[in-house]
Amino acid sequence: MAETETGQRRGRRGGGRDARRQMRASGGAAAAPYITRGIPPVDILTDEAAEIIEDNAETILEEIGIDFLEDPEALDLLRNAGCDVRGERVHFPRGLARKLCETAPSRFTQHARNPERSVEIGGNNMVFAPVYGPPFVRDLQNERRYATIEDFRNFVKLVYMLPGFHHSGGTVCEPVDLPVTKRHLEMIYAHQFLSDKPYMGSVTAPERAQDTVDMSKILFGDEFVENNTVSISLINANSPMTWDSVMLGALKVYARHNQAVITAPFILAGAMSPVSVAGTLAQTLAEAMSGIAFTQLVRPGAPVVFGSFASSMSMQTGAPTFGTPEPAKVLLGCAKLARRLGVPFRSGGSLTAAKTADAQAAYESANTIMPTVQGGVNFVLHAGGWMEGGLVADYAKLLLDADQLSMMQNMVSGIDVSENGQAMDALRETGPGKHFLGSSHTQVNFETAFWRSDMADNTTFEQWSSEGAVESHQRARTKAAQMLDAYEAPPLDPSINDGLRDFIGKRMEALPDSEF
Amino acid sequence: MAETETGQRRGRRGGGRDARRQMRASGGAAAAPYITRGIPPVDILTDEAAEIIEDNAETILEEIGIDFLEDPEALDLLRNAGCDVRGERVHFPRGLARKLCETAPSRFTQHARNPERSVEIGGNNMVFAPVYGPPFVRDLQNERRYATIEDFRNFVKLVYMLPGFHHSGGTVCEPVDLPVTKRHLEMIYAHQFLSDKPYMGSVTAPERAQDTVDMSKILFGDEFVENNTVSISLINANSPMTWDSVMLGALKVYARHNQAVITAPFILAGAMSPVSVAGTLAQTLAEAMSGIAFTQLVRPGAPVVFGSFASSMSMQTGAPTFGTPEPAKVLLGCAKLARRLGVPFRSGGSLTAAKTADAQAAYESANTIMPTVQGGVNFVLHAGGWMEGGLVADYAKLLLDADQLSMMQNMVSGIDVSENGQAMDALRETGPGKHFLGSSHTQVNFETAFWRSDMADNTTFEQWSSEGAVESHQRARTKAAQMLDAYEAPPLDPSINDGLRDFIGKRMEALPDSEF
Repeated sequence: MAETETGQRRGRRGGGRDARRQMRASGGAAAAPYITRGIPPVDILTDEAAEIIEDNAETILEEIGIDFLEDPEALDLLRNAGCDVRGERVHFPRGLARKLCETAPSRFTQHARNPERSVEIGGNNMVFAPVYGPPFVRDLQNERRYATIEDFRNFVKLVYMLPGFHHSGGTVCEPVDLPVTKRHLEMIYAHQFLSDKPYMGSVTAPERAQDTVDMSKILFGDEFVENNTVSISLINANSPMTWDSVMLGALKVYARHNQAVITAPFILAGAMSPVSVAGTLAQTLAEAMSGIAFTQLVRPGAPVVFGSFASSMSMQTGAPTFGTPEPAKVLLGCAKLARRLGVPFRSGGSLTAAKTADAQAAYESANTIMPTVQGGVNFVLHAGGWMEGGLVADYAKLLLDADQLSMMQNMVSGIDVSENGQAMDALRETGPGKHFLGSSHTQVNFETAFWRSDMADNTTFEQWSSEGAVESHQRARTKAAQMLDAYEAPPLDPSINDGLRDFIGKRMEALPDSEF
Repeated sequence: MAETETGQRRGRRGGGRDARRQMRASGGAAAAPYITRGIPPVDILTDEAAEIIEDNAETILEEIGIDFLEDPEALDLLRNAGCDVRGERVHFPRGLARKLCETAPSRFTQHARNPERSVEIGGNNMVFAPVYGPPFVRDLQNERRYATIEDFRNFVKLVYMLPGFHHSGGTVCEPVDLPVTKRHLEMIYAHQFLSDKPYMGSVTAPERAQDTVDMSKILFGDEFVENNTVSISLINANSPMTWDSVMLGALKVYARHNQAVITAPFILAGAMSPVSVAGTLAQTLAEAMSGIAFTQLVRPGAPVVFGSFASSMSMQTGAPTFGTPEPAKVLLGCAKLARRLGVPFRSGGSLTAAKTADAQAAYESANTIMPTVQGGVNFVLHAGGWMEGGLVADYAKLLLDADQLSMMQNMVSGIDVSENGQAMDALRETGPGKHFLGSSHTQVNFETAFWRSDMADNTTFEQWSSEGAVESHQRARTKAAQMLDAYEAPPLDPSINDGLRDFIGKRMEALPDSEF
């Protein structure tokens, strides 16, 4: 199915074999599998302030409690661990949740089917994954419409080819042309077949989580999956202080199979949390700790990531706002709280409320991705392609964001003070009033000296005008179309592919066509 | 003259008195005079690396030397201070330049004619000034053309009204419709009359610097100017390692009158400095120290700012590139070197090579202004309005950048962990599964809780579409026109204004009309 689709698209828009080869060569294949920082994370939360917030989180867990809804098994696990369970509300005695978090690994490997693409999540590492969840796309013709499975596949292909992304992500958009009950199968398959980067699993029902595990076993082998983490999945809390049965059900499936989950409070501050940074931090920490602790009760040692998604809001209209200082502070603060807890951290992205990939979109995205990188976030969802507060996946913005992501390794690698970095010979050779273009040091280093943008236009006004005065989002759309033409799927053992398609066929038959 | 112009423009584009009053109320008048940070600066240069670079700067000063061109007085001053002067090349014995820098103040006040707008330059403070130098504008009709004195006045008015800016700047654009010999007079006057924020002086000839001092004396009074700093001026080095007689001449005028100067290497790394961060840092430090030391020889204790402007370049085309990681590293490194030297630091801005205020412009600008703010830069030139590598001042981008600047005080104020910031009462009052919109804490805090953008559109796609699907740069142009309609000059004693116009009239008669 996807093979056919690939075959159809290939060569549709000019370019030819050489252009395609060049595009592949400049694509994801050549990139490092993830970012490793050489400089410490930016820290704006003092140790004293962190202690206050940690104390408040314990107060929330003990005094206010966390709801675990419609999951008697979860309540039993928590009660047996020493929690005070009243109805569906779980009160954690002071220190218990933090204690339970101790068995969570501080870092883990998520394996990709191509071992060169496996990622290390935690520590000094940073992994970028694309936008997650939009029901709409802004397409190659700059039209906004509902997303389809073809869009989904296109995003997976582009993310595969873009070196800025280390991870194929999950619901890169919602393929609304497929029934809700079945679409997860084609989504997982698209990640497995069209890319060799690591991927995320389905969380919209426990049985869909199980399908993810089963399909992963077909791809990686049963034994490999039982002994290794090959998927990561997003378990959102219903903030404030609530976990629902769907998310808990998916969490249990993944944790029992040693597959990673992100326990992620999704917070629009002012509505789902107090209208202050420190209040939002305490609530986020309490929610994350309750989720991580629960994961460890399901399976001690299961890989789990402290998640945080926080946006501010317009207190006039209730609309979420992005790229503002308060979420940046929550992000930097949470990153420190996660480090102190000793677990990997997920947050950030290239977030914006803008409707097109204009200056607003870029300012807001930069204002989120910059603290994300500086704060040392380990797993970054929504790192590219996000528009309109997450309602839209934009082909153009995916490329523009990916271009920015491709400079981040450079940004966090610190300042080279080797002999070559010091360049004293160049200074001696050149001297006052001369230029350095011809110096030996420049000749040796110029190829690698400066990060190069693939999307920026640095030409003169005259040249830019003569080429049609094309703005950056339109340049990105043109390039996305060229990339899709040049795309070739990474090789996959045909028997594995047959196994996946067989599994999908049987599940498709068994599942009803319905919209929930 | 400017009064008439103001009268003509007032009310030209709708709005009415109420709209004008509202626009004034939300304008610069209500804003803090400068930013004070509550969190430490971001530091990516280790102490050991800083020592290596400081040692290399001493080697440059001693062994390679700095050219002071066509200024025998300067050479005498430097020779008498202990430098080894060979022709026009000055070699500073190891440690001498740093020693001479010791008399430079670590911070100083630049007075504005409105005392509430005076700025503190140095320490934990940050002052934002607009773009400096462009011969072109992109105007209210989104057309790119040569700048005029009317554009200059418009930029001064807008900067006066925009709370993101603390400083009126200098050559906000080049009024090419006035003779080079005379335009500085109308430029200084525009800053003095149309704004009450502090301003920059002319540096294109020593006598124009003297005109700046003389006009400042008319505005502030002779005695006040002799005892206080009321102007700051940009003295660019001809990197690598060269000071020319025009800049030295202007520097001497200002320093002798205790007026502030910025000794600023302007570096396109790879051409005017080595193609490496550490090499560029050493050269910048050497150049800045030579300029600061010279200032202190002219007048010990004269206020002087360590300046740095560094861009990377495309090694394929030679074009300057902005928003890349290497200049951000130079900026953060230089900020630390300036702190260690004990003088205020100037760098950064909202820099871009883009031709329109599109996503490229915003990404690149954000990538410069963010490290600027995080690095603790004390005086930020080009903080708004800069386009096309500094060739163009864009009305739209001035407003878009200013909007970003208005959030920076919030960004650097740290996390409030007061009782109110902790918001534990809100958490107790609300509890799991509820929302915080109605909580007492939210009601008390919502007005000030979140920074609000004046330029972002956070509405739905449907609302945005129904309002014409206007992109952010066009929203900014519309708002700029409305602001110019609403502008009213800050009050100025008519006798002072007469004095300024008399002075300008006499100088205009005395000076030739010429283009140099």
